[in-house]
Amino acid sequence: MSGGTAAKAIPEFDAGFRVKLADLVLWRRDVRKFRPDPLPTGSMDRLLRLACLAPSVGLSEPWRFVLVDDPAKRQRMRDNFKAANAEALASYSGDRATRYAALKLEGLDDAPVQLATFADPDPEQGAKVGRRTMPETVAYSVVTAIHTFWLAARAEGIGVGWVSILDPAPVARDLEVPLHWQFIGYFCVGYPMEVADTPELERANWQKRADPASFIFHR
Amino acid sequence: MSGGTAAKAIPEFDAGFRVKLADLVLWRRDVRKFRPDPLPTGSMDRLLRLACLAPSVGLSEPWRFVLVDDPAKRQRMRDNFKAANAEALASYSGDRATRYAALKLEGLDDAPVQLATFADPDPEQGAKVGRRTMPETVAYSVVTAIHTFWLAARAEGIGVGWVSILDPAPVARDLEVPLHWQFIGYFCVGYPMEVADTPELERANWQKRADPASFIFHR
Repeated sequence: MSGGTAAKAIPEFDAGFRVKLADLVLWRRDVRKFRPDPLPTGSMDRLLRLACLAPSVGLSEPWRFVLVDDPAKRQRMRDNFKAANAEALASYSGDRATRYAALKLEGLDDAPVQLATFADPDPEQGAKVGRRTMPETVAYSVVTAIHTFWLAARAEGIGVGWVSILDPAPVARDLEVPLHWQFIGYFCVGYPMEVADTPELERANWQKRADPASFIFHR
Repeated sequence: MSGGTAAKAIPEFDAGFRVKLADLVLWRRDVRKFRPDPLPTGSMDRLLRLACLAPSVGLSEPWRFVLVDDPAKRQRMRDNFKAANAEALASYSGDRATRYAALKLEGLDDAPVQLATFADPDPEQGAKVGRRTMPETVAYSVVTAIHTFWLAARAEGIGVGWVSILDPAPVARDLEVPLHWQFIGYFCVGYPMEVADTPELERANWQKRADPASFIFHR
């Protein structure tokens, strides 16, 4: 071959890999309790580069990843959560309110790494293919990147927790990113205090999973 | 131990698995050219059950998977795509229009399995935890389930193509599902005609991927 690149071997995914992949999906958790240890140098960069191989509508790659280290900016996110969570608590009453107040829903005080994610809602890249009728697929593309990151992190023993109890309106301003970016989610990242195959909301007796058969329909 | 269930062994994910997982992410494609062979019996049920282990806001599990077999319903989706794609084509001009017309953007004629996905936008399950300020996290939960399905399918050699060039408004009615369900995406599923580590839009010279470093910011 002259001037070309060698064809890459197509990888095989065998039954052993598929069992491990199912284990990975089963043992991924939304983590709220973190050890303060830092992640190894380069981990986040490697994981985010892998996340950028996620599908995106029209290959628009609208994901924007913002690593938040500045203590003042982290404090703004903590304050945002506290206000939103107080309003959420006020929406429950009686036993539900007591139980809601006891839930631990974020790891903002301890997670060594904090990652804000945004979508560029109307990127040039991709020349708008595939999103004319469903512009929400831009945000969905960011979610597939997040989930890729989440699974790959778990495979390294790194936990991720999605903080959604936030007023999205001030986040771009508070983090000093372009104001037209759409806030998708804020993530706490670090080594988890514990690992489990059962969601924390189920262990806290808030909600059990339903039978998957109840979500599958035929037409 | 009396009466309890045995603790499950925590799985280890070693370096070999992580390399394969990165390969899986790299070699997942949005497939538009399918072989007509049916999938093995039970494949879809197994893959969708795994998808139901994806994260969901407040453990609300809002995903609703609809396997579409009825030829008349498949035809409605094909007609919907054709109308939306004609409008999309009309939005381009000159060289871009010629190149858009040459793109193959769906496999609706050949894919043996077709899957419509919806979100129940306000499910009882989970008692609304985590989505008061960001109700869009319900749709995002469905997207994480879709991406779990997509990766697990690829690990079995099964291709998935996301059709987003659709008018979402009539889909619930056309497929005879509850009208309040939010349409998320329509998926062609089957064995792919080819495998590749490069997106089809890049191979078609429509759009190249950007350097991941351009999507990572520090604050």
